[in-house]
Amino acid sequence: MAEFRFWKGHGTENDFVIVPAEVELTPARIRALCDRRAGIGGDGVIRAVRDADDRWFMDYWNSDGSASEMCGNGIRLFALHLRNEQGATFPLEIATRDGIKTLSESDLGFSADMGTPRLLGETTIAVGGRSWPAVHVELGNPHAVLFVDDLDEAGPLHESPAHDETVYPDGVNVEFVVRRGERHVAMRVHERGSGETRSCGTGACAVMVAAAVADGASTPVTYRVDVPGGTLEVTWTEDGRALLDGPAVVVARGTTDL
Amino acid sequence: MAEFRFWKGHGTENDFVIVPAEVELTPARIRALCDRRAGIGGDGVIRAVRDADDRWFMDYWNSDGSASEMCGNGIRLFALHLRNEQGATFPLEIATRDGIKTLSESDLGFSADMGTPRLLGETTIAVGGRSWPAVHVELGNPHAVLFVDDLDEAGPLHESPAHDETVYPDGVNVEFVVRRGERHVAMRVHERGSGETRSCGTGACAVMVAAAVADGASTPVTYRVDVPGGTLEVTWTEDGRALLDGPAVVVARGTTDL
Repeated sequence: MAEFRFWKGHGTENDFVIVPAEVELTPARIRALCDRRAGIGGDGVIRAVRDADDRWFMDYWNSDGSASEMCGNGIRLFALHLRNEQGATFPLEIATRDGIKTLSESDLGFSADMGTPRLLGETTIAVGGRSWPAVHVELGNPHAVLFVDDLDEAGPLHESPAHDETVYPDGVNVEFVVRRGERHVAMRVHERGSGETRSCGTGACAVMVAAAVADGASTPVTYRVDVPGGTLEVTWTEDGRALLDGPAVVVARGTTDL
Repeated sequence: MAEFRFWKGHGTENDFVIVPAEVELTPARIRALCDRRAGIGGDGVIRAVRDADDRWFMDYWNSDGSASEMCGNGIRLFALHLRNEQGATFPLEIATRDGIKTLSESDLGFSADMGTPRLLGETTIAVGGRSWPAVHVELGNPHAVLFVDDLDEAGPLHESPAHDETVYPDGVNVEFVVRRGERHVAMRVHERGSGETRSCGTGACAVMVAAAVADGASTPVTYRVDVPGGTLEVTWTEDGRALLDGPAVVVARGTTDL
């Protein structure tokens, strides 16, 4: 393929390469674009497509070339891109493989309606010789949220934390959480398939609802959630939806023939 | 600073961000450009400058913001950039903090004269509970080359290999080498300050001369050196110089305001 345009940006250091609709995305090209040394580098690729209803569609792909339904930090960056390059106005409905998502501008950057978290009881997570009780939260994908005294308590997360295979037959994203103040927490996350990452949008929402339930907070309520790559805010609405709010930044734009 | 132009490319997956002379490179900007998630990503930054003798100067910086004298894969990528963007013709003399280097076009891409390797005797390197005899080679920077039966023999290289502090007071780059055939070796490298990397130009030269000496080869002689990020060729000339030859690729070009 000839040269094509790209944009690179991130939301709390979850980073993505955005390409126009005319770029044919094969798994090999996705891996080449996301390669951090031989390519441009990213956690995923977003192709900006118009759907049959003349709505923007986020054609999202993981760095390994597999398709993914949704990405909370990715769609916030995509919203910035559509404002910058397409003159999009907000609130804006963006189509994804997980349905229509509503994006809004905010003081922090962009906020995404992430749908309705489901709280599914208690489970146990283990790392090395230690185990912790954890809250099972689903946000389209499975999470285990556990509260610790110190974010370093689990040590280096080179391997996937051990979990109950009957609860999580397809693996689980694990969040370790400490309290920083009133309605303010900080987290580390181990994502299934990716290892420890700088940020996870659905993980921040799972952490927030687990913390709000533990605090007996009544909705609507907003928590600050610090992740290794920055700061997010999550609001749990009166009708039980999670809104993920935070910064989005485009750092480079140009052309490539990858 | 306003937006400025950049190019990203690599030589055997040693990757670099190239910027024009007018870009002011502070340590903070170098770290931002090299950040693989919040920036563009690279092992270093090269600023393309004309010196007082109207020669191209490779103003090279490590990803941590510190200055460096020379980089064998970086200068080969810089040669490609100067051909593409400045119409440079070869052989070409490029000035560096380590003096003038001569670059040539080749079948593989670009070849750099890396100067005269110095063989300084035997030493010992240890990883975990194991130790190996190693050859001490200097190429402006210090190397320890050790021959193994299997590249996985040392296991994961999360930490710096143990070395003789009297031989290497400023640390050492360690190459593990296996033979693949006649005048053909493969290597892994642990770079001081960087950990295990995909390629190391001076390391490939150190490995080649250690192998050639072990083989009793007479100069001029060329070896193929496979690195994790690709294939290099190193020639040891009759006058004792090492020529590093291999591919160079520009993968993206554009603008940034980092």
